[in-house]
Formats: sequence, structure tokens, C-alpha cells
Amino acid sequence: MILENISSNKLFEGWHKQYTHPSSVLNCEMRFAIYLPPQANSDNPVPVMYWLSGLTCSDENFMQKAGAQRLAAELGIAIVAPDTSPRGEQVADDDKQAYDLGLGAGFYVNATQAPWNKHYQMYDYIVHELPNLIEANFPVNKQRVISGHSMGGHGALTIGLRNPSLYTSISAFSPICNPINCPWGQKAFTAYLGDDHEAWKAYDSCELLAPLSEHQPILIDQGSQDSFLQTQLKPENLSALVTNKTNYFQLNMREGYDHSYYFISSFIESHMRFHALNLGLLKK
Amino acid sequence: MILENISSNKLFEGWHKQYTHPSSVLNCEMRFAIYLPPQANSDNPVPVMYWLSGLTCSDENFMQKAGAQRLAAELGIAIVAPDTSPRGEQVADDDKQAYDLGLGAGFYVNATQAPWNKHYQMYDYIVHELPNLIEANFPVNKQRVISGHSMGGHGALTIGLRNPSLYTSISAFSPICNPINCPWGQKAFTAYLGDDHEAWKAYDSCELLAPLSEHQPILIDQGSQDSFLQTQLKPENLSALVTNKTNYFQLNMREGYDHSYYFISSFIESHMRFHALNLGLLKK
Repeated sequence: MILENISSNKLFEGWHKQYTHPSSVLNCEMRFAIYLPPQANSDNPVPVMYWLSGLTCSDENFMQKAGAQRLAAELGIAIVAPDTSPRGEQVADDDKQAYDLGLGAGFYVNATQAPWNKHYQMYDYIVHELPNLIEANFPVNKQRVISGHSMGGHGALTIGLRNPSLYTSISAFSPICNPINCPWGQKAFTAYLGDDHEAWKAYDSCELLAPLSEHQPILIDQGSQDSFLQTQLKPENLSALVTNKTNYFQLNMREGYDHSYYFISSFIESHMRFHALNLGLLKK
Repeated sequence: MILENISSNKLFEGWHKQYTHPSSVLNCEMRFAIYLPPQANSDNPVPVMYWLSGLTCSDENFMQKAGAQRLAAELGIAIVAPDTSPRGEQVADDDKQAYDLGLGAGFYVNATQAPWNKHYQMYDYIVHELPNLIEANFPVNKQRVISGHSMGGHGALTIGLRNPSLYTSISAFSPICNPINCPWGQKAFTAYLGDDHEAWKAYDSCELLAPLSEHQPILIDQGSQDSFLQTQLKPENLSALVTNKTNYFQLNMREGYDHSYYFISSFIESHMRFHALNLGLLKK
């Protein structure tokens, strides 16, 4: 057993647990959190919602602040919250310890450029290594949905769109929708992926969505008073691409809401019910 | 206006705001948080639930982690979360910066002993100065209920029981029920109140409840796996006093739950509905 349990808390009749484990993909020790709803047991494995957090976050922010476990317990969905980058003293960080590059800012890509490529392989960790670990060690089935916030919303959209057979539905709060055209994305992608802008497109949800004839159901919530809306997030670039598509795509602009977890907590219920519906846990 | 607004976040269609203000009672600058539900306006002032936090906490823990605003917005109750002690460089702290004395550990008493008595007057701050400020500056009425966690559960019980005309109902999570008979309480009361144990009784909910012929409705939730249960919290000392009283007193022992905010988040809904019922906001 390579998982080490480091905390356990009962909530809503289920269990929140944190684990550490050696990651061969990221070449370091990682921590994640899982919420197992009361329905989950070996005779009744449950689907998993992977939650990808934003810049500076760890596995803890969503679990402590979003209030999602109440719904997960009602609906019978496990939640897995990974960290947002590789971790450890040996892992490269930005020279100036900027919040938007390096530790806490993995951007869910596989880095190709030194020094980042030694550890920053977050795409493969989220899509392959972590789910394999979860599915081998917990009472969950292979049904996955994915959601996230800001940088993690970008991660949820790009990972979901690139792997339609793995993720039933996709949702996001305040996602970075077009990273190749915003300062956060350009800075991170230049560092992690280099100057070849063609290589960036595999991690841009607008570039990924544009050529698709169909896609999974997508739900996005965005606060109108989010200070990053115009410069970094650009949801209109994504929604402009779906005007001629028939699959479910809903972008809710929420008047007066900002970029914080207070915003997420206000609308997490609708995201959990959206995923439950697409997982067949609720009747349409 | 002595209030300075330092943050605003919309959630559940209401507003979470933090303010700083000079406190004449505490002789320092203080910060508090308020959640105003969408129903609150000058034509419709709403009742207030005062939430008293536990050791090491500030105004932020409950607001970020408990998920109470969802219920406050549904029920039409404002929430006020004060800090847990006076603050500032001029404020006395424990020599060893212990977590259970000094900053973050005001125990909701009026200190009589030097050096604490210069600032540590949390009882008067919570009962008088802060509510006066709230009622003068926000769309709330004079209906108050009170709740809290651990040290703050002790605060809610003692403040509520001493002021039945001010607080309609009392609730607590994992409260320190008999501080004069536990290490946390004995250490704090010795420092703040001195060696005269008679003076301690005014801040002990068992001592306060014992002689009462009637009391407000009281709801307590306690986790069975709380590591502080036997040594510090002792809810059985309190419940033993109400066997012959007819007023509502409910102590729920919750199997497997601990001392954390994950526990609070699991049962905050029942506490909010309990207070709403006693405030006349819900039909019995």
C-alpha cells in the first residue's frame, strides 16, 4: 500500500480523508483529499468528481470552503481534490516565488521545458496516475466527472474535452477559458511548454472545443464582479464557439459575485446536481 | 461612522462583509464579520445570530467553513462573527504564546487581573458594545440568538444564560461546559480572574444553569470522537443539571464526529433551524 492516511474527519455521515503517496509521474511525494459519501462501499462503488483547484491552492481549499460534501452525501458521489502542482524542496519554483508560476501553479499541463519538465507533469497525474490509485484503493467505480475553479476550471475543461470517454460531464467556476490569449496562460505556457505556440493549443479549451462536432455536457458559472474576468478568464471566447453546436453548454453570469470560494459555495449545489444528472444518479 | 469596511463578498444572494472599528471596551482596534441575508433591508430588519469561535480562531473560520450562510439566506437571519480576543501589538499575550491563553483565547470574560484587565473585556464587548454597533449600522432588529464552538460554545452558553432577555435561544457545538473543572478553563480563569474561585462561577455554564428555574431553549451537538470530550468539554456535567427542568434542552451525541469545522458543517443546518423556530421565523 503506497497510500499513507494523514487525516480523517467524519462529515455528513461520510468521511473526508487526506493521503500522501509517492508519485512516479511527478517524481515527488503528493497529497490529495477524498470525500467518501456514506453510500460508498465495496458492494456499492460510487462515481467520482475530480475537483481541480486554482492558483495557490492545495487539496484543502475546496474541501474546507465549498460545502460540496453535503451534496456529495445526498447524491452518492465521491470527491477527489488533488494538489495544484508537484511539491517538495527538490521541485523547481519560480525565481521570485510568483503565485502564478511554479509551486501551486501547475496549470494541469505536461511541461516539456527545463527545469519544469522533471516534475511538472500534472496532466498525466490527473488523467492517469491519480485515478488509477483512487480506483484501486477506494470504493469507487470508473465513472468520472470533472470540475474546477479558475486555473482548475481551465484544467477541468481541457482534461474533460481531451478525454470524452473518461469524463461524463464537465463543469467550472470562473475558468481561464482561453489561456493562450491571457497573461496567466501565456506566462505559464511559455515557461512550461516553450515558445512554440502550436504546442500550447493542446491545453487551451477554446482551441480544443472549436473543431469538435460534439462534446460532453458543460456547465460554467462566472461572477460578473470577478476582478479577473476581462483580463484572464474570457468565457465569451468559449461560449462564442458553441452557438452552432447542439450539446448542452450553459454559461451562467452571476450578477455581483466575485472570484472567491464564497461564490463557489453559492452555486456548488447546481454543479453537483448537474453532474449527478449526467451520471444517471438523478432522473432527468 | 467608526466602521471601516475591509472586504465584501456576495454569497447566496446576500453579503459577507468584514469591518474594523475602534473598541472602547477592549481599548484596541477590532475586526468582525457580518453576513446580511438578501431579506435584510431598512424596511425589513432581521434577527442576528452571534457566533462565538473557539481557541485560535478569528472572525473568518466560521464564515469560511461552516456553510451557515446558505441557511441564513433561506431563513432570513444575519450572522455576526466577532474575533476571539482583543488584538494588537499593545495587547498582552501569554509569555510562551500558548494557544489557550492570551491572543485568540479571550474566553469571553471580563478580566480583573493585570496585565489582562487592560484589554481582555470580551464579555462586555460581545454583550454590549458589538451588538450596539451592529444594531446602529445594519438592517437588523434587536432579536438575538447566540451560538458558538468549543471556547465559543462556553461563551454562548454563559452569555446566553446570564442575559435571557437579550438572547432568544442558545446553541453550541462541542462547548466547554464546566470550565472551572477543566484544564483550559482553570488556566484561563486563573490568569484573567485570579485565584478567587467564587469569581469564576459567573463564567461557568453549569454554575449558571444549576439555580435557574427556567432557561431559554438550548441545543448542543457534540462529537463522540472529539479528542477534548472527556478532559475539557464535559457536556454530561451540564445535562445532569436539567433532568428536573421543563425547558427545552437537547444534547446530541454524534457518533464518530470530531472537534473540527467538518463536524460543525454537518449539523449547522439543525442549529439554524432551531434558532429560526425560536425566533418565530418558522412554524412549530
